[in-house]
Amino acid sequence: MNELLIVGSVALDSIETPEGVVENALGGAATYGATAASLYGPVNLVGVVGEDFPAEHVEFLSGRNIDLAGLQTIIGGKTFRWKGDYLEDLNAAVTHETQLGVFEHFEPNLPDRYRDADYVFLANINPSLQLAVLEQVRAPKFVLCDTMNLWINIAREDVLKVFEKVDIAVLNDGEAKMLMEEHSIIRAGRKMLKTGPKYIIIKKGEHGALLFSGDGADNEIFSCPTFPIETVVDPTGAGDSFAGGFMGHIARTGDLSLENLRRAVVYGTVTASNTVQDFSLGALKKVTPELIEERYQVVKGMVKF
Amino acid sequence: MNELLIVGSVALDSIETPEGVVENALGGAATYGATAASLYGPVNLVGVVGEDFPAEHVEFLSGRNIDLAGLQTIIGGKTFRWKGDYLEDLNAAVTHETQLGVFEHFEPNLPDRYRDADYVFLANINPSLQLAVLEQVRAPKFVLCDTMNLWINIAREDVLKVFEKVDIAVLNDGEAKMLMEEHSIIRAGRKMLKTGPKYIIIKKGEHGALLFSGDGADNEIFSCPTFPIETVVDPTGAGDSFAGGFMGHIARTGDLSLENLRRAVVYGTVTASNTVQDFSLGALKKVTPELIEERYQVVKGMVKF
Repeated sequence: MNELLIVGSVALDSIETPEGVVENALGGAATYGATAASLYGPVNLVGVVGEDFPAEHVEFLSGRNIDLAGLQTIIGGKTFRWKGDYLEDLNAAVTHETQLGVFEHFEPNLPDRYRDADYVFLANINPSLQLAVLEQVRAPKFVLCDTMNLWINIAREDVLKVFEKVDIAVLNDGEAKMLMEEHSIIRAGRKMLKTGPKYIIIKKGEHGALLFSGDGADNEIFSCPTFPIETVVDPTGAGDSFAGGFMGHIARTGDLSLENLRRAVVYGTVTASNTVQDFSLGALKKVTPELIEERYQVVKGMVKF
Repeated sequence: MNELLIVGSVALDSIETPEGVVENALGGAATYGATAASLYGPVNLVGVVGEDFPAEHVEFLSGRNIDLAGLQTIIGGKTFRWKGDYLEDLNAAVTHETQLGVFEHFEPNLPDRYRDADYVFLANINPSLQLAVLEQVRAPKFVLCDTMNLWINIAREDVLKVFEKVDIAVLNDGEAKMLMEEHSIIRAGRKMLKTGPKYIIIKKGEHGALLFSGDGADNEIFSCPTFPIETVVDPTGAGDSFAGGFMGHIARTGDLSLENLRRAVVYGTVTASNTVQDFSLGALKKVTPELIEERYQVVKGMVKF
């Protein structure tokens, strides 16, 4: 059994989109990533919450193939909270408030049995914490990292240190252009392949995702469309679900061939296509492996010529 | 021999992009469409120019399998001129000046031998002129129309009258959303299928194109990526080249199956990928059928999983 190790934020989100509002809903990169990945196999989660973290969320996660031995609860601490909206643009959140809470002094400390992880998903947190996790993992076979514009702005060197140690980096198009200081997605992707990771994925929201391999030549780019969604209710966690689905498929198959990485991109895409159809984990928690497989086949048909 | 009938603008463009400037360069929707389509087979062009239209442009077009019996030259008239830039956004031109010239009183009058056309490409012109052309064509097998935001704004009813009479309509994402008053591309595409055309193509610039068929169900959408281009020199005419390549492939094969329409979308895409690599017709005029086929195979590889 290949357990997937996921480290990242566990949060309570307050979000407004054109489709509605939620307050203090379960969120966080590791939460979305782990819930998505648990559709594919067992997950070991590393993160931190405060004493205020509702018991029902713990029950939900542990009821889904997600081991929480690595989830620290800080007595007297407050869970990380994020408040934002997508009223102007569904592809770009406007942050109203960020309360780091227990995340401010978080030191990831992996339970010993997590340290033999073969597959590691470093979800979006401070790159110095991503590095601290990697130091504790003995001999991983395949490591994926995500990041965000905040870290590219204030900790670019650390982001690039993480890149040197991972097999694959996943960014959205804006982040990729920002990190590589390029206007072209294609150029940014090719340039990123020279910073360390063997593979780069650039997520383009409703326009799908690109997987760059080799030295990024024309025939070394895989283009995956999104599954067609008419109404995006809440885009929060789509990128985390994408990476969670991607790594979930990699861990369950143990197959690191480029062909299987392409299939993993499609699994990531269809997993994320569910996430955006409701607020918080609302849609993702209802998804079955059968629905994932159905949407996978639709995407296969969408690109056939 | 299936001659493709193309009607639209022939123009002289003055354009500035981040890559440079051109003045009074050969342009126009019918020019790009015909030059692109001529890579696939013979074209009959219907349009109008003024006495100022350089002889070298006439020589260029007629030297490429493009019949100009339908190109009127108005003595004493001035050729349509457009001036604009793409300095802010390569996906959206800012118009500085439009001189309609001979286009103001253009009445398309088809040479009799053009009226038996099986395949018709109504490139971007006033929809009332597109309708006037269709009235002269006896029994077309397959008609494609393009349009633009200007006509959607000032002649929406006429645009929809054209839609009732064509087999396929091609719009970019912004135009599709505007015409259907929808925020979602998927919803706009599905809604447009109810306005007349059996097929709808929504072009998404660097993100590729979607072909909607049937009633636009999930499995009735074809998604085609773009061929990867690092540096877009001048996006002018990309959409016209796309439609020209699409219809060129349809006319040369005479195959109206959905499978062949999908292949035509890919041919349109790779044809347009050349257009943007230089100003005016600079890159497109150098393209060979071998290069088209090479890029077609690259796109095939890009979506394989």
